[in-house]
Amino acid sequence: MARVVNFNAGPAALPLAALERAQRELIDFEGTGMSILEHPHREPPYGKVHREAIALLRRLLGIPETHHVLLMQGGARAQFALVPMNLLHPGKSADYVVTGTWAKQAAEEAALLGKARVVVSTEKDKKFARIPAPSELEVDPGAAYVHITSNNTLFGTQWPSYPDTGGVPLIADMTSDLLSRAIDVSKFGLIYAGAQKNLGPAGVTVVIVRKDLVAGARADIPQIFRYKSFADSESLFNTPPTFSIYLMRNTLQVPEEQGGIPPIEKETRAKAALLYGAIDARPEFWKAPVEKGSRSQMNVVWRLPTEELEKKFLTEATAANLVGLKGHRSVGGVRASIYTAVRLPDVEKLVAFMEGFAERNG
Amino acid sequence: MARVVNFNAGPAALPLAALERAQRELIDFEGTGMSILEHPHREPPYGKVHREAIALLRRLLGIPETHHVLLMQGGARAQFALVPMNLLHPGKSADYVVTGTWAKQAAEEAALLGKARVVVSTEKDKKFARIPAPSELEVDPGAAYVHITSNNTLFGTQWPSYPDTGGVPLIADMTSDLLSRAIDVSKFGLIYAGAQKNLGPAGVTVVIVRKDLVAGARADIPQIFRYKSFADSESLFNTPPTFSIYLMRNTLQVPEEQGGIPPIEKETRAKAALLYGAIDARPEFWKAPVEKGSRSQMNVVWRLPTEELEKKFLTEATAANLVGLKGHRSVGGVRASIYTAVRLPDVEKLVAFMEGFAERNG
Repeated sequence: MARVVNFNAGPAALPLAALERAQRELIDFEGTGMSILEHPHREPPYGKVHREAIALLRRLLGIPETHHVLLMQGGARAQFALVPMNLLHPGKSADYVVTGTWAKQAAEEAALLGKARVVVSTEKDKKFARIPAPSELEVDPGAAYVHITSNNTLFGTQWPSYPDTGGVPLIADMTSDLLSRAIDVSKFGLIYAGAQKNLGPAGVTVVIVRKDLVAGARADIPQIFRYKSFADSESLFNTPPTFSIYLMRNTLQVPEEQGGIPPIEKETRAKAALLYGAIDARPEFWKAPVEKGSRSQMNVVWRLPTEELEKKFLTEATAANLVGLKGHRSVGGVRASIYTAVRLPDVEKLVAFMEGFAERNG
Repeated sequence: MARVVNFNAGPAALPLAALERAQRELIDFEGTGMSILEHPHREPPYGKVHREAIALLRRLLGIPETHHVLLMQGGARAQFALVPMNLLHPGKSADYVVTGTWAKQAAEEAALLGKARVVVSTEKDKKFARIPAPSELEVDPGAAYVHITSNNTLFGTQWPSYPDTGGVPLIADMTSDLLSRAIDVSKFGLIYAGAQKNLGPAGVTVVIVRKDLVAGARADIPQIFRYKSFADSESLFNTPPTFSIYLMRNTLQVPEEQGGIPPIEKETRAKAALLYGAIDARPEFWKAPVEKGSRSQMNVVWRLPTEELEKKFLTEATAANLVGLKGHRSVGGVRASIYTAVRLPDVEKLVAFMEGFAERNG
C-alpha cells in the first residue's frame, strides 16, 4: 500500500530516501557481492560507513574536538546505568532533575549504583506537565554531574533552553530531540541518545562525551561498560550493530544534503507552531495539558472531551493513513510525534484532518 | 556483481532468502505502509515478528520450558559481564575454562566483578590449539557456575562434547556454533550467543537461561542488566534492536523450512570433513595447527609453507570470489569460517581452488 504518515513515538518514521538506498543495495553493497549485513566490522567496506556515520554526527551537531563520539548499544536505558558506572566516583553524589518517567528511571538506576539526589521533581505538583524554572535548580556544586532529560516523550514537555550548571558537568538524555535543533555541545559533559527517533533505527546509541571525563572515568567496571573502551577503539571495541549504524548513516545523509541543522530547526518550529496553533484554536474541544513554555516540539500531546471521542479520533485517523497517534499506555489521550522524518506537509495533513473531526464532533 | 562466497568470521554470510525477503518488504512491511524499521516495538506488526523469532529459536534448538529465551544487546562481550553480575553472588566463586582469547576475556571480566578461578587454560602448553580432556576439569563443587566457550573462532577449536559439571550450572558462550549441531539445552544453566555467526546479523544477542537461575539472580544490579527484566517482559523491557531481530527471524525461517537441525548438522559435518580432508591430504603444503580431536567445524584454520604464499593464496582466492579467508589479525594464516549460511557447494568451490593453488605452488 502507499506509505502512511507515521506519528509513532519510536521506533519512528525514517526518511524514505534512507530506506530506498538500503533497499537498493541490500543484497550487493557497493559492488562487493555481499550485503552490508554480511561485511565484517574490521574491513574497509563497513569501516568507511562507520566513520562516515561518526563524521556526519560531528558535522551536523557541530561536535568539537573536546568531545568523543561513541556508538554503543542498549539504548538510553543502558546509559541510565553506564553514566553513573563511569562517572559517579565513590564518595560523590550526582544530581538528577526529574521531569518525566525516563528521568525518574535514570535517577532510580543511579541510586542503585551510588548516591543520586533528586534536585527537583515536577511529578507531584503538575504531573510532569512542566519543565522547572532555572530558579528551582539548586545544583550541588560538588556533584559529579547534573542529569536532565531534554525532551519527555510521554508527557510532551521539552527544555526550552538548558540550565547553567556552573562547573558541574551537565549530562542530557537527548534521545527524543537530538538533531531537531541547534545545540551548543561544548556546554555539555555528556549527551546520549538512542537513535530510534531522529537519528535512525533502533539498535544503536550515540554518546557524545567530553574527553577529560572519559580519561578520569572509573576503571573498576567491566571493560564493555567503559566509555574509554569505545573511545580508544573508535567504537570498534566489539562487533558493533553494523546495520543500525549503516542506516543511521543513510538517515543522516538526508539533512546533510538539505543544509544541516538550520533548515531542520526552522521546520521543527513550523511543524510545532502549526499543530499547537490548531489545538489552541479550539480550547473547548482539544485540551493540551502542558504549560505553554514547556511544550515539546517533538511530542505533542492532547486530550479530547471524552475517551470515547479519543478512540473515535484514533480510529478515523488510522483510516485516513495518519497512524501512531495513540498516547503512551501510561498516559492515554493523543500524541503526535513529529520527529525530523515527519515533514511539514505531513503535519498539514494531520491538522486538516483534526479540523474536519472537530467540525463533525464538536 | 554476482554474490561472492563469504568465509568471514563475523558478521558473516546470511542466507540469500532471508536478505531477499528483507529487501522485498523493506519499504512496506506486510501492507502496513511503513518499514519494519519504523514500526514501534509494542504494536502488533513488530510484536508478531518478535514472538516468531523466539518461537523459532525454541523449536529449532528444542529449548525446554525450564529455560527462558531472552533477546538482548551488546554481544557476547556484554555477557562476559552480565553472567557474573547476575549469577556470581557475593562470597561465591565461578570456574572458567580458558581455551582461547574470548574465554580468557570472559574470565578477566568476571575477575573484575568477583572471584573467578581458571580451572584450566590451554594457552601455555599448546597456544590454544586443543580443548582440555574431561580429566583436566576439576570443577569446584561449590562454584556458582562453570563457564566454557564452545567454539573458538580465532584458534579453530571446538568442544567435541560438553563436560559433565555435576550440580554446578554449565554456562557456554556459543556465539560461533549455536544452531550448527544438536545440543541438549537442558544440560546447560545458560547459553549465550551474539547472532552474527549462524543466527542472523549483528546487534542482537540470544540468551537461553534456566528459569530458577533467573529467579535467584542478584537484584542489586541495574535493572537493564538483570536477566529478570528481560524474562518478565518477553525481552521488551526497553526498545529492542527491532531490525536485527526481524532479520534473525528471516534467517531462522530457512533451516525451519529445510527440516531443522538434523540436516544442518549433517551438512556441518560434511563441510568440515571435506575441508579438513583436503588439508590433511597435502601435509607438506597445508599445516593445520589444531589437534584433530579439538578441530572446529565452524572455523577451519591452517597455514601455508610461507607467509608470502599465504598472501598470494588470499589474493588469488579473492579474485576467484572466495572472500574473507584471512586469519584473525592476532593469529595470521588462513581461516575459513563455514557457518550454516555457507553451504556445501561453497566449500566444494574452496577445495577445488585449494587443489589448483597447491598444484601450481607446491
